[in-house]
Amino acid sequence: MGETSKIWTAALVVIGDEILSGRTQDKNVVQLATWLNDQGIRLAEVRVVPDVQNRIVEAVNTLRPAHDYLFTTGGIGPTHDDITVDAIAAAFDVPVVVHPEARAILENYYRDRPGGLTEARLRMARTPEGAELLRNPSSGAPGVRMGNVYILAGVPHIAASMLEALTGTLEGGRPVVSVIIGARAPESDVADLLRETEAAHAGVAIGSYPFFKDGKYGANFVIRSDDAELARECGEALSAGLRDAGFEPVDGGI
Amino acid sequence: MGETSKIWTAALVVIGDEILSGRTQDKNVVQLATWLNDQGIRLAEVRVVPDVQNRIVEAVNTLRPAHDYLFTTGGIGPTHDDITVDAIAAAFDVPVVVHPEARAILENYYRDRPGGLTEARLRMARTPEGAELLRNPSSGAPGVRMGNVYILAGVPHIAASMLEALTGTLEGGRPVVSVIIGARAPESDVADLLRETEAAHAGVAIGSYPFFKDGKYGANFVIRSDDAELARECGEALSAGLRDAGFEPVDGGI
Repeated sequence: MGETSKIWTAALVVIGDEILSGRTQDKNVVQLATWLNDQGIRLAEVRVVPDVQNRIVEAVNTLRPAHDYLFTTGGIGPTHDDITVDAIAAAFDVPVVVHPEARAILENYYRDRPGGLTEARLRMARTPEGAELLRNPSSGAPGVRMGNVYILAGVPHIAASMLEALTGTLEGGRPVVSVIIGARAPESDVADLLRETEAAHAGVAIGSYPFFKDGKYGANFVIRSDDAELARECGEALSAGLRDAGFEPVDGGI
Repeated sequence: MGETSKIWTAALVVIGDEILSGRTQDKNVVQLATWLNDQGIRLAEVRVVPDVQNRIVEAVNTLRPAHDYLFTTGGIGPTHDDITVDAIAAAFDVPVVVHPEARAILENYYRDRPGGLTEARLRMARTPEGAELLRNPSSGAPGVRMGNVYILAGVPHIAASMLEALTGTLEGGRPVVSVIIGARAPESDVADLLRETEAAHAGVAIGSYPFFKDGKYGANFVIRSDDAELARECGEALSAGLRDAGFEPVDGGI
């Protein structure tokens, strides 16, 4: 058993009519979740809300006190539907200001580009009063941190580069470790084994993910814990149990 | 201008540690959103919650009175981490029962399959008391409707076949129509045009989705409305505006 330790959690608010309309496949949940795992922080909840200020404010003000960190993606570009900064300012009840450092970054970025720093582009220098900037190594406009709220771009590769720049800067716990074991077992045949194995290893969660491949049913069992030794032990117990039941376990999954 | 009509809305609760851990890329948001559009229902909010009963109950009881329909995906299989039915029963404060019709479906489905209808498989016949079944043309276990809550499978192709079976059975409004126009215009150069065009066409929403392709910046502009004629008119106005600004509009997007 590992010692008891604080579980650090984060939530994500995805801001985007384009996700809710089905037009765009979100990719930020997977990428943020994976990155958070490495920081020792657990993604505990996601909400996808439309580009409507009071809906964003409501989600942000529900989630930011409930978690160590809150991330948002989307709505920080130069157009009329980019209202995230306004919504976060409203959530914190502070005015929106032009951040001098963000303005300088944009002035520099657009100096030699056609059109220069237009009024529309200057929108991307707006932050809630009191905010700090997040580095954006991949394009001009920075992200924004306001309290425990991290405002990221919606375009996945830009969000990724903002996260890259944040790596190692957030306080977290031990990274969650996954041990994956696959078997050509219909999951309903091993349901009891899974439940008993999980119960015998307090501190792990076992997920069961069935598949149908090459004409056969099978499942991958994912053992997750922030205690790597415990996860490994639990994996060995599950493998032994699968073997006893006549199913050959496959380390790393199928 | 279209006449004012009720906007039918739905919410989705994605139940799944595997989504929050980053292990699995969700595909149900896009597929449900697209299907709802065709039914004249708008997907208004999504929440992703872990496999934890009180978190599911909280999300379900917040969202089901707020929308015409609530969908859930995930957690209806035979293993210990499949707790959706229990959570929905708790949300409605009713007991869980074995649904006789679901039992009959599973008995029939597993009659000639190895192992037959085990206790684990029989878990998939459990429903909240008072629920109806949703047809599942692609595998044995049915979905469940409880009040305005539609409980679907998490595996995308099974969820898809449950939706297919539901097509045309839900009351909705007029389907939302999208008109898409692309241009090799940096979105910051047309931000004013977008805002003004949207403002001049009450009843449409214009989204702006930038891209970087073949070494050039551009954006697709998505005009959405439940009034097809209005969306078309707005698209023509936007195309004319883009042309005036020196950008060639591309019908259907780039």
